Amino acid sequence: MPKTIICSVGTSASKKLGIHPKHLNNWVKERKPIDDAANIMFNSFCKFKPNEENIAAHLSAEIHSLFRIGIDNSDRVFLFTSETEDGYCCGLAVQKYLEHYWPEIEVTTEYINGLQVENAQKFRNQGVVEYIKKATEAIENYGNVILNPTGGYKALVPYTVLLGMIKGVECKYIFEQSTSLIGLPALPVEFKQSQFEAYKELFEKIDRDSSISKKEWENCVPYQARLLLEPLIEQSGNEITLSGVGFLFLDEMRKPSALVPFLSRQAIDDCFDNVAQLDDCDPFRFLQRVSTSQEAFQQAEHINVGNGLRWLKPGRTTDRYLVSIEGWRLLVWRVIREDEKGKKYANKVKVDPEGDRRQYLPFMRMEYLNQ
Amino acid sequence: MPKTIICSVGTSASKKLGIHPKHLNNWVKERKPIDDAANIMFNSFCKFKPNEENIAAHLSAEIHSLFRIGIDNSDRVFLFTSETEDGYCCGLAVQKYLEHYWPEIEVTTEYINGLQVENAQKFRNQGVVEYIKKATEAIENYGNVILNPTGGYKALVPYTVLLGMIKGVECKYIFEQSTSLIGLPALPVEFKQSQFEAYKELFEKIDRDSSISKKEWENCVPYQARLLLEPLIEQSGNEITLSGVGFLFLDEMRKPSALVPFLSRQAIDDCFDNVAQLDDCDPFRFLQRVSTSQEAFQQAEHINVGNGLRWLKPGRTTDRYLVSIEGWRLLVWRVIREDEKGKKYANKVKVDPEGDRRQYLPFMRMEYLNQ
Repeated sequence: MPKTIICSVGTSASKKLGIHPKHLNNWVKERKPIDDAANIMFNSFCKFKPNEENIAAHLSAEIHSLFRIGIDNSDRVFLFTSETEDGYCCGLAVQKYLEHYWPEIEVTTEYINGLQVENAQKFRNQGVVEYIKKATEAIENYGNVILNPTGGYKALVPYTVLLGMIKGVECKYIFEQSTSLIGLPALPVEFKQSQFEAYKELFEKIDRDSSISKKEWENCVPYQARLLLEPLIEQSGNEITLSGVGFLFLDEMRKPSALVPFLSRQAIDDCFDNVAQLDDCDPFRFLQRVSTSQEAFQQAEHINVGNGLRWLKPGRTTDRYLVSIEGWRLLVWRVIREDEKGKKYANKVKVDPEGDRRQYLPFMRMEYLNQ
Repeated sequence: MPKTIICSVGTSASKKLGIHPKHLNNWVKERKPIDDAANIMFNSFCKFKPNEENIAAHLSAEIHSLFRIGIDNSDRVFLFTSETEDGYCCGLAVQKYLEHYWPEIEVTTEYINGLQVENAQKFRNQGVVEYIKKATEAIENYGNVILNPTGGYKALVPYTVLLGMIKGVECKYIFEQSTSLIGLPALPVEFKQSQFEAYKELFEKIDRDSSISKKEWENCVPYQARLLLEPLIEQSGNEITLSGVGFLFLDEMRKPSALVPFLSRQAIDDCFDNVAQLDDCDPFRFLQRVSTSQEAFQQAEHINVGNGLRWLKPGRTTDRYLVSIEGWRLLVWRVIREDEKGKKYANKVKVDPEGDRRQYLPFMRMEYLNQ
């Protein structure tokens, strides 16, 4: 399966030019247009083929790590550079190299506004946010994504790691002077969606309008909640904007990478007192599986009731699940047995999700201790 | 309140010596004992007082960031260095500097076995694990901890970030060439304890015996679960050891930084149908608070029933909670109203946590949708 690799890019592609990092930006500026500078840079290392011998000694951190990741012609690479001209030039030079040795590979070099090291506030308010936006977009559009923070600023690494955790994407990077790849697999952590739900509308508004006033923030968010929400915003003067983390969390609420199953009180009784007692029937594993895999959900879909509710059928077993999707939640309204209700169970067990809602509340998160 | 700052340490303390990083290790070895080398190094920068003018230009990354964090004489600093002699020497030199300018400060320099850049497997199997062990120990023993990954290997940053997230501790670091501190506050993420619980005993065993055989691992963990657990182990040859992440998760299960409330089916009815209906009574907020704060829990403790069960009392309201702590869970068995059950409610509402357990199962995680 083709891979998509998201790389942050530093300036190590310039190393064969023998220019002090301090002077690199001027060197690039003196060689406009930037593509000319990138060509000169590319020519300084293009003769070094991507092989064991050359990879660490003569080639850039990005090329080194991409080689270790095992890229091939069917892959796609995003090179995200700083907003500085030397950073962008290095990205273009890396792109030329990749296209030279893997002619079919799809490479995109983009500079990230605000990604620079002179102004920390701009880095956080703009650079990190834009980096996370571009990276989540790539994660959403393509499967089999790998995050590669080998190149680029150390200050960006924490955000890459967080991105990988929340989106369930693996990080791979090269270990400093070493030549081995370190992998940080998609870790089993999740962010506490429930705690933010009350403020989702407000975050949507900040995202839409780019910022809100500090006064509005304080009016909408009670004092006790502000500490909790602090990581999700940036404050500059009287303006509140979304932080990179805030954008990531909002994005995950809008387009969750996995659903979380919640059982109505009726469904709790249905599951524990009835269906789970059957041999060869594990309602919880089934609900977990359809929550984490869209494919499994689609396969299980049996009857679309039409009012947002669907009956799911696991396979040849007799258990049936009446569910709906609300945001990041999979609501489970009823769980029944076809052998009890009969083949026309969908006509017999009817739920009006609006009118009957009250009697199904609360939906409890499907996480339990049962021994 | 005194702070405890955990710093990873690199080699930037050597910069005033004017030695190429490649030759630093030899330079240190030629000046044994190591404390002599550290004194020479310290003398190369001790005249630069910790102030705005000197801090970025003349002093090491660790001193720079500690200055920005605002250390004072009442604080405690852990300097964790690589296992290399040059790394350790730099740590000692930084310690001398801190003790010189903040004579009352408590500084400990420790080298971390396996923390080096020549051997990636050793870095992961030993270096990262020991770093996480030492850091979690410090987090456990002292309050008000800040993680500071400004110095040291970039490859360690992901683990520092993860540590901060799981333990609810803030990271602060200096932005490359900039002079501003970046803070990554304790983020609202959690790891999925439930998924690991079934394997806790096995992880305990690996930790106790340092490793188990690959065969035992495969016997104990079904194929489908191995992918999920992969981040928690390291494999070398036929040996399975705990990864840094594995140790961190095991530690968090043993000594959770916060409890997670779970309601019995009876308590779900008690809460939603009765207590939550009262004015000025929010059972969920109360249970959340006592779960996340030991102090709040102790304050609320009203009657210790003696069999592991305790009645909690929020304050002047009439709601009472019969709870027990099992590992990382706060089990809520009953929620009652004193105005209904009378002052002697503890004698009236009796639960035998062993004999009656079945009728209270399942305990559902207290996370719900109620509208």
